[in-house]
Amino acid sequence: MKQELAELHQSMLLAKAAIEDFLAILAPVIKSAQSDYERLYHRHIYDEEEERLGRVKELLDVIANFQQDDTPESLRPWPSNHFLQALYLETYGLRHFIEHLNLALYGFQDEERQALLNGMLEQAHSHYQHVKEILAKYNEGNEGSSKIISDNIDSPAFTVGSLL
Amino acid sequence: MKQELAELHQSMLLAKAAIEDFLAILAPVIKSAQSDYERLYHRHIYDEEEERLGRVKELLDVIANFQQDDTPESLRPWPSNHFLQALYLETYGLRHFIEHLNLALYGFQDEERQALLNGMLEQAHSHYQHVKEILAKYNEGNEGSSKIISDNIDSPAFTVGSLL
Repeated sequence: MKQELAELHQSMLLAKAAIEDFLAILAPVIKSAQSDYERLYHRHIYDEEEERLGRVKELLDVIANFQQDDTPESLRPWPSNHFLQALYLETYGLRHFIEHLNLALYGFQDEERQALLNGMLEQAHSHYQHVKEILAKYNEGNEGSSKIISDNIDSPAFTVGSLL
Repeated sequence: MKQELAELHQSMLLAKAAIEDFLAILAPVIKSAQSDYERLYHRHIYDEEEERLGRVKELLDVIANFQQDDTPESLRPWPSNHFLQALYLETYGLRHFIEHLNLALYGFQDEERQALLNGMLEQAHSHYQHVKEILAKYNEGNEGSSKIISDNIDSPAFTVGSLL
């Protein structure tokens, strides 16, 4: 578990850096927008990613706290259902991020940004797989009990129930 | 409290209908998209609103359950912190919805859709105020205790902490 948490922490650190890089690409575009529509469009995506950045930072803090507390009770069977629910929410944030990157690839055709965006896209797919694997592993160990994650993680059936 | 829950239920029912109307506007646009970009753009917004629709439906169920259970314990000081957290998440969903409607007003310039979208926008603003008032009322009654909502509800500082 310790090893998994360390890997997740590393993966989330990369996710945080990727969001920050993406926001740094969007900021000057918003500033120099040629129309209200263009400004609103990029600003909207910026806002969504800024909100996700806040959640990712808090997840990083939570993971760091779990890593420091190495009592068996705090690490088995899993730190907390709530932590997993937050991680589940991150799979949705990640899917939106991937869509935002794909939309940006249409808008920013210069070589430099294409390279940056493609790098982020690759990393986001890898992070998404990682988070999915962790959630699947948890589900395996909790079959029939307090299973909070749908078998089909790709389904959009995210519910309030999973936040309650 | 019963009266407030009834009003909230009514407001959430209108919110649900508004999302469904918006999805009905987007669906044919996605189907007849003239480019991959156009399809991806509208599909992305469709997906986000479809996810929110799932959360709104569950919130409606939760409110309906609270309304049926009229034991004082279940209604005071408030049904559940978790319910409020879900409601807090809905303020973010609503803000995104308002931005989606504003973006759509740029894209769909015909009179019919402009009228529909403007009606939804007005209703979404009113629903947003309603949800904010309920959250503010809760905060007043919980000053210094288990306050889960930021004083400045308009701040984008939504955190994983508020989901935990």
